Amino acid sequence: MAALSEYHAQRNSLIDADLSLRREYRNLHSRSSKELEADKIMRDIRALEAKTVWTADYPSIPHPFPGMEFLTGKSIIMKTKVFEILSKMPKGALLHAHLDATVDIDFLLQLALKQPGIHIRLHKPLSKSNLSTNLPEFRILPQEQYSQVKSISDPTYSLQTWVSLVNARNFFSQELGGMEGFDKWLIGTMTINPSEAYGTYNTLAKIWDKFGTVFQTSTNLFHIEPIFVEYVRQFFRSMIADGISYVEARINFTPKLMYGADGQLNVPHRTWLQIFERVMNEIREEMKQQSRGDDFIGARIIYSVVRSATPEELVWYLEDCITLKKEYPHLVAGFDLVGPENVLNPLIYYAEQLLRFQERQKEESLDIPFIFHAGETTGDGTEADSNLYDAILLGTKRIGHGYSLHRHPKLVEECRQKGIAVEVCPISNEILRLTSSMPMHPLPALLNYGVPVALCSDDPAVFGSMGLTYDFFQVFVASEITGLSTLGALARDSIEFSTLEKAEKERALGVFERRWSEFVEYIVVEYGAK
Amino acid sequence: MAALSEYHAQRNSLIDADLSLRREYRNLHSRSSKELEADKIMRDIRALEAKTVWTADYPSIPHPFPGMEFLTGKSIIMKTKVFEILSKMPKGALLHAHLDATVDIDFLLQLALKQPGIHIRLHKPLSKSNLSTNLPEFRILPQEQYSQVKSISDPTYSLQTWVSLVNARNFFSQELGGMEGFDKWLIGTMTINPSEAYGTYNTLAKIWDKFGTVFQTSTNLFHIEPIFVEYVRQFFRSMIADGISYVEARINFTPKLMYGADGQLNVPHRTWLQIFERVMNEIREEMKQQSRGDDFIGARIIYSVVRSATPEELVWYLEDCITLKKEYPHLVAGFDLVGPENVLNPLIYYAEQLLRFQERQKEESLDIPFIFHAGETTGDGTEADSNLYDAILLGTKRIGHGYSLHRHPKLVEECRQKGIAVEVCPISNEILRLTSSMPMHPLPALLNYGVPVALCSDDPAVFGSMGLTYDFFQVFVASEITGLSTLGALARDSIEFSTLEKAEKERALGVFERRWSEFVEYIVVEYGAK
Repeated sequence: MAALSEYHAQRNSLIDADLSLRREYRNLHSRSSKELEADKIMRDIRALEAKTVWTADYPSIPHPFPGMEFLTGKSIIMKTKVFEILSKMPKGALLHAHLDATVDIDFLLQLALKQPGIHIRLHKPLSKSNLSTNLPEFRILPQEQYSQVKSISDPTYSLQTWVSLVNARNFFSQELGGMEGFDKWLIGTMTINPSEAYGTYNTLAKIWDKFGTVFQTSTNLFHIEPIFVEYVRQFFRSMIADGISYVEARINFTPKLMYGADGQLNVPHRTWLQIFERVMNEIREEMKQQSRGDDFIGARIIYSVVRSATPEELVWYLEDCITLKKEYPHLVAGFDLVGPENVLNPLIYYAEQLLRFQERQKEESLDIPFIFHAGETTGDGTEADSNLYDAILLGTKRIGHGYSLHRHPKLVEECRQKGIAVEVCPISNEILRLTSSMPMHPLPALLNYGVPVALCSDDPAVFGSMGLTYDFFQVFVASEITGLSTLGALARDSIEFSTLEKAEKERALGVFERRWSEFVEYIVVEYGAK
Repeated sequence: MAALSEYHAQRNSLIDADLSLRREYRNLHSRSSKELEADKIMRDIRALEAKTVWTADYPSIPHPFPGMEFLTGKSIIMKTKVFEILSKMPKGALLHAHLDATVDIDFLLQLALKQPGIHIRLHKPLSKSNLSTNLPEFRILPQEQYSQVKSISDPTYSLQTWVSLVNARNFFSQELGGMEGFDKWLIGTMTINPSEAYGTYNTLAKIWDKFGTVFQTSTNLFHIEPIFVEYVRQFFRSMIADGISYVEARINFTPKLMYGADGQLNVPHRTWLQIFERVMNEIREEMKQQSRGDDFIGARIIYSVVRSATPEELVWYLEDCITLKKEYPHLVAGFDLVGPENVLNPLIYYAEQLLRFQERQKEESLDIPFIFHAGETTGDGTEADSNLYDAILLGTKRIGHGYSLHRHPKLVEECRQKGIAVEVCPISNEILRLTSSMPMHPLPALLNYGVPVALCSDDPAVFGSMGLTYDFFQVFVASEITGLSTLGALARDSIEFSTLEKAEKERALGVFERRWSEFVEYIVVEYGAK
């Protein structure tokens, strides 16, 4: 039937036209035959696992499906071949991660236990029933103030008294689980578990409350110099292990000082940058020693301030950022405002100061791009949603989250035309209840509209989603359009839209292409027809 | 600061440009001062109720919010002034509703109890623990087969034996709640309750199972001529009471016959249309008698077939549709395929037959537009998602649901340019778990991209969302951009994109404008500054 074959031809053109803006479509027809083969292999494994791994019977998971709630599905994800393969994928750059939420909480706790000065205290008595909401406070004390108190869980414990972390752990009441119970309790206060995300705090507004307490507790430990040093080191090591070769980490500079090893609050921002740089160089050296120099291109910092600052306070931070940029131009990648957009101040509130900041940069011949969080919301026309207008008008280099961006025709067009990439954080969005699961996430709309996207992990320590493999996994299994080449395009764009200088970027992209070929080869050799 | 005021000017233009495709923006500046005032009043009430009604403490609703899960939030919705006001709004046309799910189940049960021939039977013994899953079967029997058995809940009940509905109810075991328990049981089998939607069946795939049993049970009663007559009458009456003045109802013609009053399966499709027309005329007369002739413009039928038919079977239905269209051109509005898109056959499966149908129409000089369900899915690139390509290529007049449409740049453009309206069913989408709540619904994207939209109720009897007020409510409270004028544009578009002939449409639009002015006046008088 001629009409039918003509219909099929029209249909193919319509689909092509519809998908033609996608970033991977630019090179779709120049892909190597190896990549085509690997793409097919990955699609086949995905299809097979959707029917096997994802339909199997799991006692504690009533109805699993690909792209399901991450915290519940994680144990299944880890059983899949797709996950195993993606863990070996070169990921390009990590462009959106809050440094204070990037290292495994287990590891952080081990770091803290190694520091004899670290103490813990409580503001209400600990009991079995309040373990999950009784938040501890940490501090490093000067040696002369080290505490001799043994237990914080004993009925004799006097509230607000500091106890050394080691003692608190060693003498943790057996009723509350002893040392194991102690670790479990602390880890619980610094992470989000499934029953919290999908039960107790199962709304946008409520989960931010839990999220806030998580940061309140963990940054207590993070802001201690000897821990900070090892934290940064572990972050670099773990990201490299996951195939990430470059990072632009957001550091919250709202606190003006962190604690030194001497127990004094005396370590200024400048030292934070020096530590970051020193550790980065050490890791570079470490990688070179292992003949893996190319696996770590480097790291930069996005200077961030919590959006609860007054406009006057913000001016201080903007000047601080300028000062640091002058001294460490290769370290300061950009500027951002952080914290819940629906609760704290919108960008427009700071318009005057932010415009002035741009003038100041001209005066100082500096370039500190804005890299704003905006539109991390399901709201339509709310302040958080409207932050997208300001971010773009203020010339943001990228958009953090941009969850509501796909709804805005003009802004989508601007992002595509001006090359404003969106830092999409799939697992973060889902755990923070912007979306219930991956199939409902707006990422496919952004991709089809040709907006450049970099996948990011946001706060992997809080979510237990270390690296980028989990995020790539969730994206890959929730769309039939997305294939291996889509993942490649996402990884390339993470480098392309970084703040790396031209020469550095070319090197990073060159390294990426070599690693990508190896990855494609690995898929074909390991999983192809034998 | 000059830079700041210039910034604000740029910001306003950007927002205007971004929203300029919205349908209500075409007439934004020609709105009456009354409408501007009413719009402001509605926004103020919405903002106030967000802070009062929606933050109050409800014992059984842990964390209410505007646009929350409908089945849980319904009792709060009904307390709001917004709901009270919207219930008086003229809604225009209802373009997407499955006739067999449009009348309150309570009412359907009353209708059935009035028919002495209606019998009920069970295939497994009824017990307290299986009430919600033990599905009854209904039939009208010929008088000579009327049953003398008294009870279906008694231990002596012999399975598969017919019992008259009246007896089954009168003698329903006290242990199971007596007559009240009987009603509750039957209503439960024909509706979806919160714990089913948000607990037991809380995924797309699972809720369709429940949805299927609901239809299986209720259409048993619907397909009995004397009930059908009164069902259609009640549907018209209740839609008019909610301010809907015209309807294009989907009727599932897959069963070729329904039962007559004589208990025989002998009522053909042609008679279904005759009944529909007769009742429509009676209601017209009834409305004229009440001097409300303008409140009911009329009704048409979208001939629908379940997408499990074989291509050969489909040909029979397409010819049947042509035959009926020839005899009742004013009744047959279009053709559609229904049923779960992810489970049954995609449109492409029937491409040959559907193309041939268009040829046949030319031969017969008929115009029976396709009005296809398509994209009722969160899938990306799945068969259900790809139905959008076929619907548009086959020249669909409107798209039923189009839930995944917003992801498709080319298709969004086609809809806007060719005037293909989307029948958006907010409450249906949420209960069928495409979205978890209204703030996550893609409707705002479609509106911002200028796609014409008609809000629809889909299966109000199953959801307990009779009329269109609930759907308009959910849309209004979940977006700050959406105002009264947006709702007006949605209602106008429901008429504009109906299949009414030019003259009928003009009349309907004229009537609508008069009623809209009265509605605006009512808001200002009742709720404006006194």
